[in-house]
Amino acid sequence: MAQNNIRGVLSPVLTPFNADYSVARDAFLAHCRALVQCNVGLAVFGTNSEANSLSLAEKRELLDMLVENGISPQRLKPGTGACALPDAIELSRHATELGAAGVLMLPPFYYKGVSDEGLFRYYAGVIDTIANPALRVYLYHIPQVTQVGISMGLIERLLRAFPENIAGIKDSSGDWDNTQAMLTRFQPQGFDVFAGSESFLLRTLQGGGVGCITATGNVNAAQIAALADTWQNADAAAQQAQLDTVRGIFQKLPMIPAMKAAIADQTGSADWSIVRPPLVELDAEQQRQLKAGLADIGFKVNQPARAAT
Amino acid sequence: MAQNNIRGVLSPVLTPFNADYSVARDAFLAHCRALVQCNVGLAVFGTNSEANSLSLAEKRELLDMLVENGISPQRLKPGTGACALPDAIELSRHATELGAAGVLMLPPFYYKGVSDEGLFRYYAGVIDTIANPALRVYLYHIPQVTQVGISMGLIERLLRAFPENIAGIKDSSGDWDNTQAMLTRFQPQGFDVFAGSESFLLRTLQGGGVGCITATGNVNAAQIAALADTWQNADAAAQQAQLDTVRGIFQKLPMIPAMKAAIADQTGSADWSIVRPPLVELDAEQQRQLKAGLADIGFKVNQPARAAT
Repeated sequence: MAQNNIRGVLSPVLTPFNADYSVARDAFLAHCRALVQCNVGLAVFGTNSEANSLSLAEKRELLDMLVENGISPQRLKPGTGACALPDAIELSRHATELGAAGVLMLPPFYYKGVSDEGLFRYYAGVIDTIANPALRVYLYHIPQVTQVGISMGLIERLLRAFPENIAGIKDSSGDWDNTQAMLTRFQPQGFDVFAGSESFLLRTLQGGGVGCITATGNVNAAQIAALADTWQNADAAAQQAQLDTVRGIFQKLPMIPAMKAAIADQTGSADWSIVRPPLVELDAEQQRQLKAGLADIGFKVNQPARAAT
Repeated sequence: MAQNNIRGVLSPVLTPFNADYSVARDAFLAHCRALVQCNVGLAVFGTNSEANSLSLAEKRELLDMLVENGISPQRLKPGTGACALPDAIELSRHATELGAAGVLMLPPFYYKGVSDEGLFRYYAGVIDTIANPALRVYLYHIPQVTQVGISMGLIERLLRAFPENIAGIKDSSGDWDNTQAMLTRFQPQGFDVFAGSESFLLRTLQGGGVGCITATGNVNAAQIAALADTWQNADAAAQQAQLDTVRGIFQKLPMIPAMKAAIADQTGSADWSIVRPPLVELDAEQQRQLKAGLADIGFKVNQPARAAT
C-alpha cells in the first residue's frame, strides 16, 4: 500500500471566473495559496470547483500554472475523472507527472445503471495505461450527483488488482453507514477514507479515517483544519458543532454560488460570484439571507483558527 | 425560422473500436456510408455512439475524416452538447464551419436540479459565442439518462431569443404526451420535432413532426427510412408493427452492445462488438438470445427495404 499519502483536510477549490467566463487565474492562485496557508490541501477540479464545466485544456493549464507559481504538487489532489476514458487518462497522467499527491476520480457518469465490471474496466484502463507507481487514485463516491456509485465489491476488486495505485476514497454519499463500512473494511488495509464533508470529520477520524474533502474548506479552512489537528482534544465535539453551524448557513443555499458570494462580499471583488452555466449566482434574497446568517455568528471567510484549548 | 433543415430518419451512429479502444476509423466510415445509402442521416456522437466516452479531439478528427472522405455535411447532425460550455462551443462551431446540417445538443448533465435559467445561459452561451446564422441547434431531451430535462418553458424562451438558430428537438423521453405537446405547441413555428426512436415514428409524422433519430437506425436503417417515406400509405401501421418487432428484440438487451454484436456477427468482424468502459459487451447468453431472436424473424442488419405497397 502507498505510504506518505496526503491526509487531513482538503478542499475542492472554487474556480473564480471573469465576466467572459474565462478562469480568473490570479484569483484562483491567490485562493489556492490562502488555503495552503490554512493547512488545507487542494482538491482542485472537484464538484464544487465546477470541474465538469471546465475543458480538459483549461484544467491542464491551471495545474501547470499552480505548480509554476510555487504551489507544492504534494498539496494537490486534482479531480481527473471524466466520462471519456481518454480524458481521464490524459489529466491523471499529467497530474502524476507533475508530482501531484493523488488524483480524485469520478466514475464515468453519463450512462446510468452500468455494471461494476464496466467501472472496473474504466479505472483499470486509466491505471494500466499510465503504468506509473506514482499514480495514487482516490475513488470519488457521490451517487446523488453522478447516479453511478462505487460499491464495496468494486473497491475490493480494485484494491486486489492495483494495491500500489488505489489509495483511498472520498465518500460524499452523506450516508454515515456507508462511510463506517468503508472504514471498517478497507481503512485497515491502508485505503484512506475521507469524509465527503466536515459534517462527518470527527466521526471519520474517530473511526480510523484520515480526514475530509469538503466544499466548506473554501471558506472555513482554518477551523476545519484545526479540528483535524486536535480531534483528540476535549473540545473536539464543540469544534465539530461550530463547523456544523457554519456549514448549515451555506447549505441552506446552493453551495457553490453561496461560497462564491461570501468570498466576493469579503474581498470586494464582485467577479468572485460568477459561476458558469448551468449554475446561476445567488439572487438578491438569497444574498441577503446568506449575509444575515453569517453576520449572526460573526463569521468571516477563512479567518484564522482559534487557539486549540 | 430556418429552412431546408435536415428531416426524416437519422441514426446516432455506433462508433466501432479497435482492441486498444481507439476508434476504428475505416469501419466507422463504412458504416456511415451504408447508413447514408439507406437514406438515414448521421447523428454521429449521440448516446448510442458512446459519444461521451470519446474525447473532444477524437470527435473533431472524426468529423473531419468523414467530410474529407466525401460524406456530405448536409447529412451530418453531430452531437455536440457537453458538461463544459467551452467543449460545446468548440465542437458546435467546428461542425457548423464544416457545413453540418445541425448539431444535437445535450444539456450539461453533471449537476442535477439545475434551473431553466442556467440551461438557457448554457445554450445562449453557445449560440452567442459562435454567432453564426448557419448554426442549427437541435435540443436533446433524454431525462432518464441526463437527469436534466428540457422543459416547455425553456424551449419557448430559446425560440424567442434565437429564432434563427433553434431548429428543433429530439425527444427521447419515451413519453408520448411530451412529444405530442411539443408537436402541438412548437412544430407549427417550424421547430422540428423528432421522435427519440422509431417506436413513435408514425405517430410523430401523423402529428406533424419531421422524423426520428433512432438507435435502431444503425441496424434496421432502410426499413425505418421506408416508413418515413411512405407513412401515408395504407400499410403504414403494418410497417410500424414490423419496426417494433425488430426493436423489441434489441431492446430486451443492452442496446449498444446488442447492436454492435449484431453487426459483428453479420460482418464477421469480431472487433465490432467492442465497447468502451463503462459499457460492457454482451455475455454469451445474451449473444445467444440476440441471435435466436433475430433468426426467428429472419432479420439481417441493414437489409434493403421491401418495396412500398
